[in-house]
Amino acid sequence: MEFFKVVSPAEAMEAVQGFAPLPAEEAPAFEAAGRILAEDVLSPVDLPDFPRATMDGYAILAADSFGAGDSIPAYLDMVGEVRMGEAPAFRVSRGQAARVSTGGMIPEGADAVVMEEYTSRPDEGTLEVRRPVSAGENVLATGDDLRKGELILPAGRRLRSQDIGAFAGVGVTVLKVRRRPRVAILPTGDELVDPRVEPRPGQVRDINRFSLAAAVMEAGGVPEAGDILPDDLPAIQARLREAAERADVVLISGGSSMGVRDHTVEAIDSLGEPGVLVHGISIKPGKPTIIGRVRRGGVDKAVVGIPGHPVSAFMIFHAFVRPILRQLSGEVPTLADAARRVRARLSRNLSSAAGREDLVRVYLEEKEGALLAHPLMGNSAMISTLTRADGFITIPLEREGLPAGSEVRVTLYG
Amino acid sequence: MEFFKVVSPAEAMEAVQGFAPLPAEEAPAFEAAGRILAEDVLSPVDLPDFPRATMDGYAILAADSFGAGDSIPAYLDMVGEVRMGEAPAFRVSRGQAARVSTGGMIPEGADAVVMEEYTSRPDEGTLEVRRPVSAGENVLATGDDLRKGELILPAGRRLRSQDIGAFAGVGVTVLKVRRRPRVAILPTGDELVDPRVEPRPGQVRDINRFSLAAAVMEAGGVPEAGDILPDDLPAIQARLREAAERADVVLISGGSSMGVRDHTVEAIDSLGEPGVLVHGISIKPGKPTIIGRVRRGGVDKAVVGIPGHPVSAFMIFHAFVRPILRQLSGEVPTLADAARRVRARLSRNLSSAAGREDLVRVYLEEKEGALLAHPLMGNSAMISTLTRADGFITIPLEREGLPAGSEVRVTLYG
Repeated sequence: MEFFKVVSPAEAMEAVQGFAPLPAEEAPAFEAAGRILAEDVLSPVDLPDFPRATMDGYAILAADSFGAGDSIPAYLDMVGEVRMGEAPAFRVSRGQAARVSTGGMIPEGADAVVMEEYTSRPDEGTLEVRRPVSAGENVLATGDDLRKGELILPAGRRLRSQDIGAFAGVGVTVLKVRRRPRVAILPTGDELVDPRVEPRPGQVRDINRFSLAAAVMEAGGVPEAGDILPDDLPAIQARLREAAERADVVLISGGSSMGVRDHTVEAIDSLGEPGVLVHGISIKPGKPTIIGRVRRGGVDKAVVGIPGHPVSAFMIFHAFVRPILRQLSGEVPTLADAARRVRARLSRNLSSAAGREDLVRVYLEEKEGALLAHPLMGNSAMISTLTRADGFITIPLEREGLPAGSEVRVTLYG
Repeated sequence: MEFFKVVSPAEAMEAVQGFAPLPAEEAPAFEAAGRILAEDVLSPVDLPDFPRATMDGYAILAADSFGAGDSIPAYLDMVGEVRMGEAPAFRVSRGQAARVSTGGMIPEGADAVVMEEYTSRPDEGTLEVRRPVSAGENVLATGDDLRKGELILPAGRRLRSQDIGAFAGVGVTVLKVRRRPRVAILPTGDELVDPRVEPRPGQVRDINRFSLAAAVMEAGGVPEAGDILPDDLPAIQARLREAAERADVVLISGGSSMGVRDHTVEAIDSLGEPGVLVHGISIKPGKPTIIGRVRRGGVDKAVVGIPGHPVSAFMIFHAFVRPILRQLSGEVPTLADAARRVRARLSRNLSSAAGREDLVRVYLEEKEGALLAHPLMGNSAMISTLTRADGFITIPLEREGLPAGSEVRVTLYG
């Protein structure tokens, strides 16, 4: 039997560091929500590129309204109305006013907008102003929103819907984003059958290919899930060789039998340096995880041997594969991402072996305005514990458990 | 000028209630992540449908190991090895053992698995057992994960990656999910040009069509964004009539000029009962919002007149359009969704007019282990304040502001 040297989760994390971001590619800005920016985006123009009214009202010189009030209104001469989408053909001089709608251009000469509700029109040609405005009031000046050359968003940012709007506003229609990571999924195991097939006694339907493919998509990657492989070294080797050429990450989902684990190690090592870096992690679930690298075209491809138990597979994906995908996509996490890990109180005592990190699935309950995290105790072979879970908590290596009432951080799924 | 009766946000919320979930449609289970279940999914089979080993080791009768220890091991006769994916052709009787890998079928007669590390093989035909196991230990019994007929997930649940795995495990390959809401977006305004076009003086690039379309997709809907409409009643009316036939929700993104607002009201009312229900909400930003309904084929289609300012448009989408989309998709929110609203401390005093709800964009900062929410003060015409924001907080109607240090709940964007 292969020598099985279990490493700590921290050591295993080192083995999944140092992956360079994937090459940039061009994408239409309006379809780029969820993609990761490959370069800083600067505004190519001033936004707005002319002074605009932010309220419906009248463009005037602020000085003409100084001292105006209900008892002593100011009276100005109407010189026109600003048409939406057009530059006014007139200017506004001292003692004059022009009607303007929200978003309309401020005519030359004017420096403020007095809101409609503080005015009246004693006759067609006259405006009565009953409130003073200061210079710049109700006006969005040229470049107030974004100045030409100003940073809109930095490289590494995951694009949200409002970001797409900002690009539209300044006419950025094409972006450089990171190519999505391609993740090959190799399900292995003599006992596995396709979910569409009726299993014979001793056979089980493959779960991991589907949960992992969906998790890859959720992480912004492109899954390439192949057919089930037999527990056979040449077959695994051939598929791994091919997958390592094409994909950025290869997941060999072990049929959890001892044979497949040995074959995974041998197949990775047979493809040259660096080979297997980790074989066994002091983590539960997921101890028999294998982490290796295969160099192709001067680039390291991550190869992760994922345990066959569906819960172990899913948790190891979150713990070790997602960090690889984040590096490949060049994403710089924001504080908002970190804040999504929610605080809760543990509902009961949890024990854990010292020297082992435990990832414990929990569901949440609200009680007296606070969140309770209830551990789900099922076996890591039970996918139902994952469908019932809202997220998971971590019991660190050095702890022998957590008492009921402990404050914990719940990493929410999906 | 149209009579403009501002209602409270709570009254406006009533106008967006009561939309029935959209019809169900069939979808392949493996492509259904993010979709909403239209019916409860029960397991059609026991999972597993035979007893399986959860560890590598030996299948035995637990009674044969009672009292076994390092000093007095139990000795059993080997009767065979369970092959993965096959039903063993032998049974295990008292005094016997069979080798089994994780996931292998427990042979008839055996009721426990003793882990490999507590055993040795003095010779080919003999197993030495140095630890007692109890009945059922290291065995996943038939139906332990899911019993036939057991609820996997209830109607209304948004599907996550692990759910897709569970469906695979029990052979559920087709699901009933809700049709995605179709949202027509009608950008209006004489000042708007397509972002690909160089604006002339007085013109601006359309933002809302793109930020709203991306936000609709993020919410699981299907946007249908049309060309920019002029500020012209017959044009708006014709497009609205057509959109109300096809779409479930119509957003008329106002060019923010007074004329467009009046035309929106008139166009909605011209399509019959119920017509405009809300015209103006005591909320900032977004006061000039219009909410109406148009009945088509016995079903109410929501029509929302969205203010032209890009920040107002985006916030009104979150506040009033997303609730409509949630009803249409039949989604039952989970506690995990609610928990994503994160707690933070307000970094500075915020004032607000009493009788008006304020939606204040904030960015987060971590300071001494706690989250600070910094208000972003720009004008609601400034899209850059949204690209800088992590989320928003709400100052309720009845408050005249919030002091620095207040605990607030931040609804994170995207």
